[in-house]
Amino acid sequence: MATCEFFYDFSSPFSYLASTQIERVAEGHRLVWRPFLLGAVFKAVGTPIVPIASFPRPKRILALREQYRWAEHWGVDFALPAVFPQNTVLALRMALQLPEDRLPAATHAFFRAVWVEDRNLGDREALREVALGAGLDADRLIAGAETPEVKALLRTNTDEAVARGAFGAPSFFVGDQLFWGQDRLDFVRRALEGWKPREPGPKVLARVDDLSGST
Amino acid sequence: MATCEFFYDFSSPFSYLASTQIERVAEGHRLVWRPFLLGAVFKAVGTPIVPIASFPRPKRILALREQYRWAEHWGVDFALPAVFPQNTVLALRMALQLPEDRLPAATHAFFRAVWVEDRNLGDREALREVALGAGLDADRLIAGAETPEVKALLRTNTDEAVARGAFGAPSFFVGDQLFWGQDRLDFVRRALEGWKPREPGPKVLARVDDLSGST
Repeated sequence: MATCEFFYDFSSPFSYLASTQIERVAEGHRLVWRPFLLGAVFKAVGTPIVPIASFPRPKRILALREQYRWAEHWGVDFALPAVFPQNTVLALRMALQLPEDRLPAATHAFFRAVWVEDRNLGDREALREVALGAGLDADRLIAGAETPEVKALLRTNTDEAVARGAFGAPSFFVGDQLFWGQDRLDFVRRALEGWKPREPGPKVLARVDDLSGST
Repeated sequence: MATCEFFYDFSSPFSYLASTQIERVAEGHRLVWRPFLLGAVFKAVGTPIVPIASFPRPKRILALREQYRWAEHWGVDFALPAVFPQNTVLALRMALQLPEDRLPAATHAFFRAVWVEDRNLGDREALREVALGAGLDADRLIAGAETPEVKALLRTNTDEAVARGAFGAPSFFVGDQLFWGQDRLDFVRRALEGWKPREPGPKVLARVDDLSGST
């Protein structure tokens, strides 16, 4: 049995799409749900805080089309919410207080709120309603979200993902193999089954730094 | 029978990977090979001329790893050439002079030269050798590449791709549906078989312009 670590943020449409499939993909293996703060990841690696906003227009349009295509491909509901991007810090800190066996259901509820039900998790009252609707002790979780211990949990997940090479969401780790994007779930599955794809050698990897100067 | 238009540039590793699979993917349908100048596409849409060079370091590393992973996935040879990026204008103009039935084999030869045999198509003598090795009338094609007619052919493919919404390579069109990337070949196949995935409505599409202001 292998382990898949799933790093996600409720603000990310492709994290939502991944969340609808990851339990099937990781079936028979250990799945660890790891909410992290995508904005902090972008800041750490030096990416615009809303990457899609920095895309040239035709790429923005295709990125949006792709969200709808993949939703149809997986057979799940999807609608771009009225508020995007959303501030998900509080929602993530609420999720992080849950015991391991309750985190998946809560994660699904938060994702559906944003990407199906057009709720804004950045609005505290809306978030409270969503949490209550998911059967959570909303007020206790909201209060807990302000404690240093819970804030540290979110920072830990975020910093660890960055330290291990993540730069976006969703990110999946199988051991030290990083996969980025819900369009790599087939690769995630194969990695769980023992696939170790060929890696570029150290000389080739060293050249990624040369490339940074070739603009 | 549907038509797949395949836009590619020899300078693009993921175009090479696509070229190794596209005939299988488009089997039973019409496949149109359309060399275009990726650098001019980037310029037209406002993307850095070597996008990977503008990525944050962890994303550059994963982009490189992905090239090796996908090569292994498809079971094809792959090696990052010593010279990257390469100036492929002349090679593309040579390819564009070939009759339709000779273009696929020449395309494979040029791609293999860069992505398997570590040749530099930006070096005129190396390019000449590659063309001769592929059984082409190299000197005639090199001379023809300087004519206004042939230059216009490359511009036409490039401008048309941009006008239809392309912003990178490889790009595939099935009718007016654009697919970007060799990791979308399954979608290309399904589109050829009649798949019409749900599109975001005009109101949602209009919002891509709002997003550009949300950085």
